[in-house]
Amino acid sequence: MASDLLRAIPLGGVGEIGKNSTLFECRDDLVLIDAGVKFPDERLHGVDLVVPDYTYLLEHIDRLRGVLITHGHEDHIGGLPYLLMQYESPEPLPIYGTKLSLGLITVKLQEHGLLNKVALESFDDGDRITLGSIQAEALEVNHSVPGAVGFVLRTPVGTVFFTGDFKFDPDPPDGKTTDVDRLRQIGDEGVLALFSDSTRVEQPGWTASERIVDDSIEQLIREAPGRVIVTTFASNLGRLQRVIQSDYRLGRRTSVAGRSMEESLRVAERIGYLNVPEGSMVELRQVASVNPDKLVLLTTGSQGEPTSVLSRMAAGEHPLVKVQPTDTVIYSASPIPGNEETVAHSIDNLFRRGANVIYRAINDKIHVSGHASREELRQMIDLLRPRYTVPLHGEFRMLVLYRELAMEAGLPSKNVLITENGDVVEFSEGEGRVANRVTSGAVLVDGLTVGDVTKVVLRDRHRLASDGVLIASIVVDHESGDLLSGPDFISRGFVDPSQDEVLDDARVTLSKSLDKALRQAHESGVVANRIREVLSGFIYERTRRRPMILPVVTEV
Amino acid sequence: MASDLLRAIPLGGVGEIGKNSTLFECRDDLVLIDAGVKFPDERLHGVDLVVPDYTYLLEHIDRLRGVLITHGHEDHIGGLPYLLMQYESPEPLPIYGTKLSLGLITVKLQEHGLLNKVALESFDDGDRITLGSIQAEALEVNHSVPGAVGFVLRTPVGTVFFTGDFKFDPDPPDGKTTDVDRLRQIGDEGVLALFSDSTRVEQPGWTASERIVDDSIEQLIREAPGRVIVTTFASNLGRLQRVIQSDYRLGRRTSVAGRSMEESLRVAERIGYLNVPEGSMVELRQVASVNPDKLVLLTTGSQGEPTSVLSRMAAGEHPLVKVQPTDTVIYSASPIPGNEETVAHSIDNLFRRGANVIYRAINDKIHVSGHASREELRQMIDLLRPRYTVPLHGEFRMLVLYRELAMEAGLPSKNVLITENGDVVEFSEGEGRVANRVTSGAVLVDGLTVGDVTKVVLRDRHRLASDGVLIASIVVDHESGDLLSGPDFISRGFVDPSQDEVLDDARVTLSKSLDKALRQAHESGVVANRIREVLSGFIYERTRRRPMILPVVTEV
Repeated sequence: MASDLLRAIPLGGVGEIGKNSTLFECRDDLVLIDAGVKFPDERLHGVDLVVPDYTYLLEHIDRLRGVLITHGHEDHIGGLPYLLMQYESPEPLPIYGTKLSLGLITVKLQEHGLLNKVALESFDDGDRITLGSIQAEALEVNHSVPGAVGFVLRTPVGTVFFTGDFKFDPDPPDGKTTDVDRLRQIGDEGVLALFSDSTRVEQPGWTASERIVDDSIEQLIREAPGRVIVTTFASNLGRLQRVIQSDYRLGRRTSVAGRSMEESLRVAERIGYLNVPEGSMVELRQVASVNPDKLVLLTTGSQGEPTSVLSRMAAGEHPLVKVQPTDTVIYSASPIPGNEETVAHSIDNLFRRGANVIYRAINDKIHVSGHASREELRQMIDLLRPRYTVPLHGEFRMLVLYRELAMEAGLPSKNVLITENGDVVEFSEGEGRVANRVTSGAVLVDGLTVGDVTKVVLRDRHRLASDGVLIASIVVDHESGDLLSGPDFISRGFVDPSQDEVLDDARVTLSKSLDKALRQAHESGVVANRIREVLSGFIYERTRRRPMILPVVTEV
Repeated sequence: MASDLLRAIPLGGVGEIGKNSTLFECRDDLVLIDAGVKFPDERLHGVDLVVPDYTYLLEHIDRLRGVLITHGHEDHIGGLPYLLMQYESPEPLPIYGTKLSLGLITVKLQEHGLLNKVALESFDDGDRITLGSIQAEALEVNHSVPGAVGFVLRTPVGTVFFTGDFKFDPDPPDGKTTDVDRLRQIGDEGVLALFSDSTRVEQPGWTASERIVDDSIEQLIREAPGRVIVTTFASNLGRLQRVIQSDYRLGRRTSVAGRSMEESLRVAERIGYLNVPEGSMVELRQVASVNPDKLVLLTTGSQGEPTSVLSRMAAGEHPLVKVQPTDTVIYSASPIPGNEETVAHSIDNLFRRGANVIYRAINDKIHVSGHASREELRQMIDLLRPRYTVPLHGEFRMLVLYRELAMEAGLPSKNVLITENGDVVEFSEGEGRVANRVTSGAVLVDGLTVGDVTKVVLRDRHRLASDGVLIASIVVDHESGDLLSGPDFISRGFVDPSQDEVLDDARVTLSKSLDKALRQAHESGVVANRIREVLSGFIYERTRRRPMILPVVTEV
């Protein structure tokens, strides 16, 4: 009999930040850890979300024993609806998470009408879940959302530790430190492979404790002469809760602005996570009744999203909140890569309204990361002493830097397995390697539909964005070839309609050329090509631009 | 007689980084300092460059005594061609700069065929230039391009110091420190107003010396097992020269890849600035003949520009240079805000090819900024002891932070004049204030044409980029209103052509609706509106997308 095999396939989250999703396979059993989304960069024109390609998983869906969720961030749970849309089994899919993770998932699946397709199973720190030949044990870790865990996966082939997003906060405000002793014990049992977060491997040293954030925000609120506006991630429920409590201690009431923040606070409250002092909150529409120096606004918009509450306030367009020179605005967040410019734009606008804006570049104590820096990543390796490590949750350079780190910790280079999405990592008889690949990639979500925004569509959008479109229409008599109408032009995104001399000249040139062309042939394909050729040449010569030229040739 | 007035108008460079250009006006004399460009952010679809709106200057062009250039960076000289395109005087426009600045300007104006419109006048450190009632004295400053100066402007109203981009490098490799004693003397004479760089005011402390860059690059080259690729800004000629000299000392030859870098080295050589040891250089097409461990490549592409030499090497698409696992790549540059993602993408690709990549996030000694940090900005104020300061070259938040800094240095808040582009700062009888505004703004350059990419065009490009375009054409008998042809659809950037069920269904819906509509009216405007209405409703309902719908209704 062939010896047992453990396979691990990152379907998302390596060579990128976002859409984390890793599939484990042992004997007949599949277990998926996380199903995240990624937000598109500007090259993906018009795309709303990017999710993993689940083709391989769907081909073997009858063997999927369940989905384990490390924590409730979008890049770990946001892909679930798109996986479930393609999930056709009569049996509900078991999804395992901590209470808060499941609360956030519930909201998401309700919105998509998919709650009936799943069986949500909650676990606590230390619980064990049997998924066929794979047994998972949850271990709570520090991160920027409560209820975050890593998993010990015990399999016939060996033990794997999967960190999820984590840090070692030596003094977290909730008192729950990542359990170093238990990690060391797991290391003593023997760890075949460590699958580790690597997002922050470029950062030397240790990530600072969340406690310094609490202290400095409280101090800033205490010293603020008027209203305080605090913006942070809607999911950072620990921080939100503690700001509310600070406000209460300082004799201020708190109001919340922004749908996603209201929603995550509602979820937290429903599952009993949130502890809000009686009378501490005030509805946004009633903030006018509270003295500014007795008020703190918690808002979304820390990433400068143009439609967010804070951006609208900054632009002077919020119906209820007008930013004043006596306001203090605290950005308790860092820009996610790609958002630097929109965040800067919001900060500038708030300064233009005279507000005192405190942001990370000038005060590094108002936000700390939820991810382990280099020394913490090293500590995780030292505690677990794995035979292999597989860095996850990082762009390619981070995976390479993690390999250097693991080598400093004593692992041979070949025992750090660097993967791309879809690579199959195989473990057998204590040895691991990257074996082969399965179908994988990025599936684009635009509006209601998934997958129909292809490379062709994106290429066209890119071209339309650069130089616009020019439609040239003519009607031709299909017997005589006579030009019955046109050429008529419609252009969008090319030149301003008030400055269209170039189009007038193009029409003259095209008309001349068409007279000749139609005398030779009037097959509409041939004529259309001729129109495209004449116009693109003429326009490029005159403007050095290449609008998309679409001939509409109709024969009647 | 009314007392004299000095006016200063930032036409670009405040509330933004880029297109620096400031106009001074005293009695009948206008003097422009710098004429820069800005590179567009992603919201400016298809735009190549952004230049200042020179409407006000052009209205008074007969009073312009000359253009003073602080240094040869694009954000200080790149707008000159667009200003000169609009300059109609028979007299050539005097442009004053150091030899290197003028060399770089010459190349630029030659390309545009505009050299005949200017009289280039070079000056050295300490030279005085009389421009009507304004006398300018050049003072060399440290920056990331050689030949950078600030200007003392002596006017009947008082003395202004204009820093240009600067830093205080205590130990620059060329030995030329920014002259602190002379600045103190100028301060002793009495300074009415300091116009200061503020780009790096968010950065505490002092900017590190350029010397540490030289030392660490030399050490990295010494330790590299094979070929070394160094990328930096093409304009950083001091650094380029010193890398070439290091290479020579280490027994390596240097090759240059990338048009802009070749060109700026050629300019530097022509004016005698460059000092290249005999036999130290090798042509790119001959690098195959040099042992990799005897070779250093200097390349453009430090900003991840997709078409740059380094990006093509990283993608494996460069015809002459294939990146090897023994290569060391040194990014001697920081990403300019907005370029973070493209730079990261190139770095990742180089790691994918196995190269050892050294970049700023993991080694902060391979690049330093050319701009003054907070303490240096403070030192400039302390040396000059101005009555007023006007922060320039910064986004709005930087101007505000500079005000805080100036207040720490003892200036009253009202003596720090924060401006937006087009604001007129007036000085008279020792007092200064922001008085009124002149026409100003951003002029967009796309291809050969300037100014015809308007808000309407950009809005359309944005819409086209998001959801594409759908053209619906019909031909109608203009007497009977009978539908002679169509509806026919052409779509681009909407859905993949292979998945166009939605278009089939839309055609059925539209045909039904048209039958009815044409029976009521066949005026083409009315019919076009009906097509737009029916299609946009149907498509949004089905896809939640809003392609631009362009009806083409032809009556024959």
